[in-house]
Amino acid sequence: MSKKRLERQLDFVLELDKLKYIERQSYVVDGRRHENDAEHSWHLALMAILFSEYSNQEIDLLRVIKMLLIHDAVEIDAGDTYAYDKAGNATKREREEKAAERIFNILPEDQGKEMRDLWEEFEANETPESNFANALDRVQPVMLNDITNGRAWREHKISANQVLERTSYIEKGSDVLWNHVKSLVDKNQKDGNLM
Amino acid sequence: MSKKRLERQLDFVLELDKLKYIERQSYVVDGRRHENDAEHSWHLALMAILFSEYSNQEIDLLRVIKMLLIHDAVEIDAGDTYAYDKAGNATKREREEKAAERIFNILPEDQGKEMRDLWEEFEANETPESNFANALDRVQPVMLNDITNGRAWREHKISANQVLERTSYIEKGSDVLWNHVKSLVDKNQKDGNLM
Repeated sequence: MSKKRLERQLDFVLELDKLKYIERQSYVVDGRRHENDAEHSWHLALMAILFSEYSNQEIDLLRVIKMLLIHDAVEIDAGDTYAYDKAGNATKREREEKAAERIFNILPEDQGKEMRDLWEEFEANETPESNFANALDRVQPVMLNDITNGRAWREHKISANQVLERTSYIEKGSDVLWNHVKSLVDKNQKDGNLM
Repeated sequence: MSKKRLERQLDFVLELDKLKYIERQSYVVDGRRHENDAEHSWHLALMAILFSEYSNQEIDLLRVIKMLLIHDAVEIDAGDTYAYDKAGNATKREREEKAAERIFNILPEDQGKEMRDLWEEFEANETPESNFANALDRVQPVMLNDITNGRAWREHKISANQVLERTSYIEKGSDVLWNHVKSLVDKNQKDGNLM
């Protein structure tokens, strides 16, 4: 083990600390403030453990968790793009590619490649692991919106159709979680939290 | 899968959201505020992935990560006890046992038992996985103190000996990380960040 290797790993760990300052649109459960990317990633990894039995396909849980822990790393440079921000989403890919280039290269080459590959896999959403990881990434904000009476949805005047369109690929990862999300969307539409 | 099962899992996920509000003494890297338990748990899980090669013993990485993601869950009821708070640490075990009883029982029985067992294993620190998980839990605050010029240490007038005593069992989990921590303590003592 070269000193250099450990230093690069430590630098990456400290660089990723910045995810603690990147605010998302979702509110935490008691509504006191927005959630940040580090908290969100922890929450998803926890959900992966508890909900793995609901994956439609057999999955390598460790790979799902690794993916979730770093899936938002590129937002350190590219920022959080709100799911329903059309203009932001048009340039998202380009901004995030550039960020990935810088951020994952902080690591030693083998680990940088592993993390970059996991991120690309998550983005492509074509493997059982990424299907399930993406499903969780879509379920969690719906849960937080539901428990806060649709606060972020109401602020942005989001419709039930927009949420269903945005979350529809939960179905690829988990029928159980997709059914749950549909029931939450129904309920929130009835309650007037979704247009 | 009974409806009841999913409901209990969802309740637990929402209950654990409270870890996002539990402040630790450590500051985030840029010093703007204290770190919270959810962020801390995410950071440790990330470190487990990157530093697993430095474990002294062979480990099941997935079990280490599961342990780290829930190791602070009891603080929802018991609060964060600062490492150097003697009075707090005297009653810590009792408060945390009571908390574990309530919190892990929110889950379906099998998962509640798995999480409770993981927490007990972490606390006992007698297996390769818990040795490594505990090592990371001691390394990360030292890294955050170092990068913030010993801010939390200086506020609480902590000495180098107190840190070394507190962190000495990193050695059980990882010689590499223990050497790193010793070098950081040396440096911070020279810089006057530790008494």
